[in-house]
Amino acid sequence: MKIHIIYNQNINRLERVYNMNNLELIKQKAVEIFSEEELDEKIKNGRKLTIKLGADPSRPDLHLGHTVVLRALKHFQDMGHEVVFVIGDFTGMIGDPSGKNKTRPPLTFEQTRQSGETYLKQVTKILDKNKTKIAYNSEWLSKMNFKDVINLTSKYTVARILERDDFKNRYENNLPLSMHELLYPLMQGYDSVALNADIEIGGTDQTFNLLVGRELQKDYGEERQVVITFPLLVGLDGKEKMSKSLDNYIGIDEAPEVMFEKAMKIPDNCLFEYFRLTTDIPVSEAEKIINTDIVEAHRVYAREIITMYHGEECIKNAENRYNSVAKGEVPDNIKEIEISNEIKEIPLCDLLVKIKFAQSKSEAKRMIQGNGIKLNNETVKDINQIVELANKENIIKFGKNKIIKVV
Amino acid sequence: MKIHIIYNQNINRLERVYNMNNLELIKQKAVEIFSEEELDEKIKNGRKLTIKLGADPSRPDLHLGHTVVLRALKHFQDMGHEVVFVIGDFTGMIGDPSGKNKTRPPLTFEQTRQSGETYLKQVTKILDKNKTKIAYNSEWLSKMNFKDVINLTSKYTVARILERDDFKNRYENNLPLSMHELLYPLMQGYDSVALNADIEIGGTDQTFNLLVGRELQKDYGEERQVVITFPLLVGLDGKEKMSKSLDNYIGIDEAPEVMFEKAMKIPDNCLFEYFRLTTDIPVSEAEKIINTDIVEAHRVYAREIITMYHGEECIKNAENRYNSVAKGEVPDNIKEIEISNEIKEIPLCDLLVKIKFAQSKSEAKRMIQGNGIKLNNETVKDINQIVELANKENIIKFGKNKIIKVV
Repeated sequence: MKIHIIYNQNINRLERVYNMNNLELIKQKAVEIFSEEELDEKIKNGRKLTIKLGADPSRPDLHLGHTVVLRALKHFQDMGHEVVFVIGDFTGMIGDPSGKNKTRPPLTFEQTRQSGETYLKQVTKILDKNKTKIAYNSEWLSKMNFKDVINLTSKYTVARILERDDFKNRYENNLPLSMHELLYPLMQGYDSVALNADIEIGGTDQTFNLLVGRELQKDYGEERQVVITFPLLVGLDGKEKMSKSLDNYIGIDEAPEVMFEKAMKIPDNCLFEYFRLTTDIPVSEAEKIINTDIVEAHRVYAREIITMYHGEECIKNAENRYNSVAKGEVPDNIKEIEISNEIKEIPLCDLLVKIKFAQSKSEAKRMIQGNGIKLNNETVKDINQIVELANKENIIKFGKNKIIKVV
Repeated sequence: MKIHIIYNQNINRLERVYNMNNLELIKQKAVEIFSEEELDEKIKNGRKLTIKLGADPSRPDLHLGHTVVLRALKHFQDMGHEVVFVIGDFTGMIGDPSGKNKTRPPLTFEQTRQSGETYLKQVTKILDKNKTKIAYNSEWLSKMNFKDVINLTSKYTVARILERDDFKNRYENNLPLSMHELLYPLMQGYDSVALNADIEIGGTDQTFNLLVGRELQKDYGEERQVVITFPLLVGLDGKEKMSKSLDNYIGIDEAPEVMFEKAMKIPDNCLFEYFRLTTDIPVSEAEKIINTDIVEAHRVYAREIITMYHGEECIKNAENRYNSVAKGEVPDNIKEIEISNEIKEIPLCDLLVKIKFAQSKSEAKRMIQGNGIKLNNETVKDINQIVELANKENIIKFGKNKIIKVV
């Protein structure tokens, strides 16, 4: 495998790819650019540009889905430009004034600052810390008075704001849509004015909001920011956009073993997009790998992201563990549970509860009936199976991942 | 004429009418009350109530159309309650931030205070000065920050605000409707919250805005204001709502002669509403007068409003002047223009330009051709008519009102 050799030869892949031309890499992955001419013009100018990315203040756990835009930001940094993360702490501190969303209480000032720090820590796994700034939009939004708000809202028509799909749908279907919700895109757009942003990037689901910023800048007499949108990475379910709340994600902070295992679960027909959007492996090479051997292609991908977020040295352990679990072997670093020496034998059902595989005896029975439990690598068929404990180690396994050695 | 006798006997009409019951008079003229039960409850309570009326800061010239609600306010004052005029200086000082309405530049602080003083001076021709307060909504609106605005806007849905007819029409017909315009009804509604208003009154065209205030008060935890709407007085054209800009108005500051003349021009089928909405003459009496003699009814109405805004003593002069003009007689206080003694005769066309009836000779000819010019009380037919000036006074008349004596 060609890519595998690249690791072994310790080739600096990033540098190799970036030499291909940062701007082209950005354009290759972008869905839309408003407008490409303006982008070329700004880059040609040679001035250090401010690249804006809006960030949600309440959920700072980054996953591969986020890295699509983060990696584009890295390209800009490599061209010498500065990235500004705008933490939307202003709205975060207000919460939902309509009281409709009670599960999201207002954040305190400290919480939003903490979120900002966590963001910075996480994004600098991809980005250059020295070219990355964090800004909090309360810095300018909290200083605006009613007159400023009227001025801001005068620059946008009702018709244009109601073009946003979710607004339009809710309005036309008589679902509640509070007036303050219409202000949010304007706030986010005003962030671009306050920062005098040159470029804003985001997922395709943010296109409307990003364009509001671009239009507002013009109304405030600034040069319009270029807006670049990128595809949304589909989650491990192969259907929805990757997100923490849907539990279809690979977090960039997750352990190498977890990354490897999750990577192997990426639906075959999605793997190319994972390569294309979240790694530096050239698309032509990714195609070749996938067409040759889809299982090995998953492994290449798994090794790639482990290298990116943990380092090459973590690949071996993670892959070995995956292999042994896949083969039904007992991995080396298996968890052990000690049972009192006085117990010589125990019904398997009781043992499953004791080692917390099941919460109740009846659940344990159902697990056995479903052929899910292996005792010393043999599937148990009898719900009354007795486990001999005296002078013996027993390996209990449930599914592919839960393994415990009872000693 | 019964009403005429009332004047001569110097009967205090106001007192007589008010003894009939202020609350009933209000209800009699009201179009809608939200709700009548709540109104009765508040009045029964015996507490001194705050009655709110919103006022435009830029046009303080009151006409009879305004007096419809002002007279209702007077009834409330006579019951012991306090009237607060809210001068919308906040929006007045902002102007139109979209720059669409360039004919209405922002007002200065001083201008809005001056408008307030003018208002107070004019309304106290009808209202009790000691029970009338002026408030400026910049007092509370200018102190609101973005967070307060979000809180305010969260209390109203887009669907409800777009129910307002003019918003709905403009939105549905793709006419420009800026987002800041949607904020105006909320600001006006918030005035009721800030004042803790008990009752707000206005013309039927204000119903939507007044109800916003009523609803917002509930959202801010206050007792809802009662909203009472009154008919809009139709102008002298018999079609449009009375307004200064349409020049179909009778101003309460206008001279008795002008009032008399304008009152005589009220369309016959509108006269009853003028009686009902702008005078204290009981409707039964007004009906009787109108059914007896429509011309005399106009005179009664003219005398009534002159008495109300200038005093009975001004009736005689005004009516006499009207009579002589109507009969084609030359009123006593006619304007004189002196023409040089050296001019012995002059073509009428030239004279009309000289005395500024016409702006050009051709316009003057058209006036003669239209049978509009009388020379010494005879309609001139010949456009080449020569006027003898030597040792002679000539009376030139155009229409009913323009009369000049050439000496």
